[in-house]
Amino acid sequence: MDRGGDQLAGLTLDFIRSQLIRLEDTILFSLIERAQFPRLPTIYAPGAIIDKEVWTGSFMEWLLHEQECVHSKVRRYEAPDEHPFTSPLPPTILRPKHYPSLLHPCGKQINVNAAILAFYVTKAVPQLCREGDRGEMEEHYGSAATRDVECLQALSRRIHFGKYVAEVKFVGDEPTFRRLIAARDVHGLEAAITDAAVEQKVLLRLASKGRAYTGGDAKVDVDAVVEMYRELVIPLTKLVEVEYLLSRA
Amino acid sequence: MDRGGDQLAGLTLDFIRSQLIRLEDTILFSLIERAQFPRLPTIYAPGAIIDKEVWTGSFMEWLLHEQECVHSKVRRYEAPDEHPFTSPLPPTILRPKHYPSLLHPCGKQINVNAAILAFYVTKAVPQLCREGDRGEMEEHYGSAATRDVECLQALSRRIHFGKYVAEVKFVGDEPTFRRLIAARDVHGLEAAITDAAVEQKVLLRLASKGRAYTGGDAKVDVDAVVEMYRELVIPLTKLVEVEYLLSRA
Repeated sequence: MDRGGDQLAGLTLDFIRSQLIRLEDTILFSLIERAQFPRLPTIYAPGAIIDKEVWTGSFMEWLLHEQECVHSKVRRYEAPDEHPFTSPLPPTILRPKHYPSLLHPCGKQINVNAAILAFYVTKAVPQLCREGDRGEMEEHYGSAATRDVECLQALSRRIHFGKYVAEVKFVGDEPTFRRLIAARDVHGLEAAITDAAVEQKVLLRLASKGRAYTGGDAKVDVDAVVEMYRELVIPLTKLVEVEYLLSRA
Repeated sequence: MDRGGDQLAGLTLDFIRSQLIRLEDTILFSLIERAQFPRLPTIYAPGAIIDKEVWTGSFMEWLLHEQECVHSKVRRYEAPDEHPFTSPLPPTILRPKHYPSLLHPCGKQINVNAAILAFYVTKAVPQLCREGDRGEMEEHYGSAATRDVECLQALSRRIHFGKYVAEVKFVGDEPTFRRLIAARDVHGLEAAITDAAVEQKVLLRLASKGRAYTGGDAKVDVDAVVEMYRELVIPLTKLVEVEYLLSRA
């Protein structure tokens, strides 16, 4: 799947930032598509739509798992920048292939999807989607859950890109990072990877794109998207960076 | 899945047009996402990626079928405005439900997806996507094909909405349409359903949205999108309208 182009451009902070910036558009498009539909709490409630004998999770999680099974068959989760939400997943139907990665091998184990999923369902959807009338609910279950899967996959990709960011920062100042890692200094690592000016720029650019994309017939609450970046995307990306660095040593 | 909201707003031309206009954004977003990746002719060549004993079609068609199998399990293709590209598809895992439709029962049989798929693969992708370097090919197979599926599903939904357009036009002038249908007057029907001013407005609005959505980091050849509407979307929508009317009698 999307490889982040490890071997194409090498691993520079500029290249990684260009990927992160492009992912903002994918995330915005996915959220705009989801926001067409009401919140639909039923699709997130285990047992509410699919019988518990068939699947113990929610309808949306069932769709997410089915989707991941399909993508697993075409090797999506063998790529170093892709992380599944569900398991177990079936093996690939394709010929085996080695995906080179510029990340430290420890990197693949770090997966914050559970936190992404929990935040998305409990905080992002209620802020991004309208409540909806009782009558229009059921017909949108599939459409909304399909969009949820796309939003979650785009968010996961964006947040786990933190591994690449961390790797580049590590290589850029190895002595400092080795010292902080050896001391298990989480606060020091957080401080070393944080660039408040860049974070502010991300939020401003996101708001500007959001306004451009919703000027016509497509709609989403741009403030809610910015809020989601501030509360979910940026903190979890930093968590991924710190965890990656701590496990890297 | 997306129901077009039959029973919500009733079936007015204004309501249908609002759905068609909103689908323009979905189509644009999907095409912008696809245009991130090269053309990748290999994913459209039967046998090139998946062994012919496993699947006789192309890699992209395999992904499309797998996707439709998942969606079929949650009743997508029982909705009157959804049409699968592939078959056979598995039954639903959900409780049975009757989807009311304001279309004539003849409508469900009309399916122009084969024509959409052929045009999309042979004309739209070569126009919308860059050629790509040899080295970056394989890693994008899954990403590109996933986007293809999204483009095809959005195009299919837009084009088959022609059934609703035709139904509203039929109800609006039943004597004229009954006469043309009885005479099997295809040219007369085409003339009766064509509104050149509306078609022009669609193309202009599409170009304007396309420019707004590609002003930042997302990119697509807006002229190529407009061309695809002119050559594929508008003519096939009209074909659906005429076929629906002819079979309606």
